Amino acid sequence: MTTTIKYHEINFTWPKGFYSDGLNAGMRHKRPDLGWLYSEVPAAAAGVYTTNKVCAAPTTLTKKLITTNQELQALIMNSVFANSCTGSQGMKDALLEQELVAQKLQIKPSLVGVASTGLIGSFLPMDKITAGIAQLKETTSDAVTQAVMTTDTHAKKISVAFKLAGKTCTMTGFAKGSGMIHPNMATMLAFITTDAAIDLTILQKLTSELTDKTFNQITVDGDTSTNDMVVVLANGLAQNKQLTTAGTDLAVFKATLHHVLAFLAQKIAADGEGATKLVEVNVNGATSLPDGQKVAKAIVGSNLVKAALFGNDPNWGRIMSTIGTVDAVFDPQNITIKLNDILVVDHSLAVAFDEKQASTTMAASKVVITVDLHSGSAQGQAWGCDLTYNYVKINASYRS
Amino acid sequence: MTTTIKYHEINFTWPKGFYSDGLNAGMRHKRPDLGWLYSEVPAAAAGVYTTNKVCAAPTTLTKKLITTNQELQALIMNSVFANSCTGSQGMKDALLEQELVAQKLQIKPSLVGVASTGLIGSFLPMDKITAGIAQLKETTSDAVTQAVMTTDTHAKKISVAFKLAGKTCTMTGFAKGSGMIHPNMATMLAFITTDAAIDLTILQKLTSELTDKTFNQITVDGDTSTNDMVVVLANGLAQNKQLTTAGTDLAVFKATLHHVLAFLAQKIAADGEGATKLVEVNVNGATSLPDGQKVAKAIVGSNLVKAALFGNDPNWGRIMSTIGTVDAVFDPQNITIKLNDILVVDHSLAVAFDEKQASTTMAASKVVITVDLHSGSAQGQAWGCDLTYNYVKINASYRS
Repeated sequence: MTTTIKYHEINFTWPKGFYSDGLNAGMRHKRPDLGWLYSEVPAAAAGVYTTNKVCAAPTTLTKKLITTNQELQALIMNSVFANSCTGSQGMKDALLEQELVAQKLQIKPSLVGVASTGLIGSFLPMDKITAGIAQLKETTSDAVTQAVMTTDTHAKKISVAFKLAGKTCTMTGFAKGSGMIHPNMATMLAFITTDAAIDLTILQKLTSELTDKTFNQITVDGDTSTNDMVVVLANGLAQNKQLTTAGTDLAVFKATLHHVLAFLAQKIAADGEGATKLVEVNVNGATSLPDGQKVAKAIVGSNLVKAALFGNDPNWGRIMSTIGTVDAVFDPQNITIKLNDILVVDHSLAVAFDEKQASTTMAASKVVITVDLHSGSAQGQAWGCDLTYNYVKINASYRS
Repeated sequence: MTTTIKYHEINFTWPKGFYSDGLNAGMRHKRPDLGWLYSEVPAAAAGVYTTNKVCAAPTTLTKKLITTNQELQALIMNSVFANSCTGSQGMKDALLEQELVAQKLQIKPSLVGVASTGLIGSFLPMDKITAGIAQLKETTSDAVTQAVMTTDTHAKKISVAFKLAGKTCTMTGFAKGSGMIHPNMATMLAFITTDAAIDLTILQKLTSELTDKTFNQITVDGDTSTNDMVVVLANGLAQNKQLTTAGTDLAVFKATLHHVLAFLAQKIAADGEGATKLVEVNVNGATSLPDGQKVAKAIVGSNLVKAALFGNDPNWGRIMSTIGTVDAVFDPQNITIKLNDILVVDHSLAVAFDEKQASTTMAASKVVITVDLHSGSAQGQAWGCDLTYNYVKINASYRS
């Protein structure tokens, strides 16, 4: 018996009962820099947050709200300023944003989450944000997906339709990258909305589990930010019977959520600062999932591997060397490596291969590195990008 | 009472009884690529080696020799090819090098160490190396300091004179970098020779302890190589009474060795691939030495911090964010940061400072970042360099 996966991508749309808007509040020149999300009714909320000990005020606030109440009805978000390292004034500002949105929507402040991304260490321009909030509307616009962008070159968004016991549901997610993406979903925000009805505890469990396999397996530059969060909101307006136990419907929901998170994670990696290509690393033959994931992420995180990928250089020695640094169980004498399906290392020994052909395939927009550790049956997967002149350029002149 | 440090730098010279040579064996176009070191008598030997599980044949061999016998009389070394990931043929080649040198010098093979650095995954051109070894002489040349260079822009070498109970001793060290320097003395080789007489066990203890404070606190790009070693040889020909117990003489020896290792470590960091400046991070107020060192090394290892340093951008938010990712004891609300003595963060809050002036001071060849964690009295120190276009250029075209 094969399971038919009951979801498919559709044109961008908000799930039933979700509204949104985004606008330019004057923090940047022209592009939207302030936006919101709003659900007609309170939605079950789950989240995963930065592990950085220096945690920004909005992230601290939203984490506390979701952990305490497990529901949210609205989220206000901005780019340009991260409201991080801003002390008690920073928290006052985040609380004021929350209050302004709650007043406008006539809901409780505790139902309003706050997210910011941008430069660390500056206070939010509360005059501009206050004026901006006053102008936000309940539309079906996708402008919010642009309002959260920093050095992203394009918005990252997806809508998926799926069925739960005959009821059509929608799941829509968006995210922003694109530097500082490591080791755990950093300098990124992702928001997923769905009209499916699902038990709170299950929603949080799935969000944590699938974030580990997706957003936590991407890396752009090995740095970790102070503001990051993945928030999933489920308002139940599709009127399916609430998902509470394992079964086909929950499997469909999980597969859909996994698809949405993996899609957004890969989009962030591919649009990493300065990137010219997406890099996918698949590790097979690991003794455990964590070991496979550690090895995959180490490879995709190595500056030397990333620079070689930029140069289309099939320099597998750097991959071997990186694997050797990982705290995982494997035999260094028994490693097999393929670059885009071309065997380059067989059981830790060099293989004669057509370097020119390998280099040509590496010039594509996606490069796949496949490693077999020959030590077990677990797998690991990670995504990243190459290290380029433009990465240095972007980050040597971030604030100018 | 103050202790007068009884050592001073002198012009390059080999310690009593040490000879050396270096020449071009045809592995690279013109520059020396093969060299050796030789002591008239067997020397006490201590070493620290790469922690990479993928360990190259020469490193494996030399580590075994020193661990087993704690003495060496000669070291043969080459650049261009690392003899790493070369399987049993690689070990045969390393053993042949050892044998050829032993025959030529008429000493036991077990007294000959082997070191290689360069591209991973290619076999050594043993015809060229055999011919090269036949031509090596017992001279006082410093050509060996060039023979180990890969992407280094200049040789790194130092000679220091010091006195032990009236006897004049010399210590001479050299090292090569300059990419892949992290987390533990990687893509580097360092060899230190001295004519001082010192107990084997004490020599190994000092070498390990001081390597942790010097070579293990530099980082260029977060990558770790397969070939690295620090080897200290002490042949005793200065005829001082052998150092066996704590006391003034041992303190002088330790201070001298620390000076030599720190000098070479900083030279490697300053000459990191593509670097335009040396970065020194001093962490004060840590609860322990390891915590202080971890925080210092994390800052100097952050791509975002390094790119900002290249751009002379006093973007302290990236320093705060990096500190927040470190597994160490501190209060994220109580961190103070200075950039070249300019206070930029006071107890985790932004301070108004002259950004233009700060940027101007950052254009110097050395930038100092000082962090106070206000959590204890321990310190940590680390060295690195900025991340530049040239780093990417060098590593995107390493093999061409």
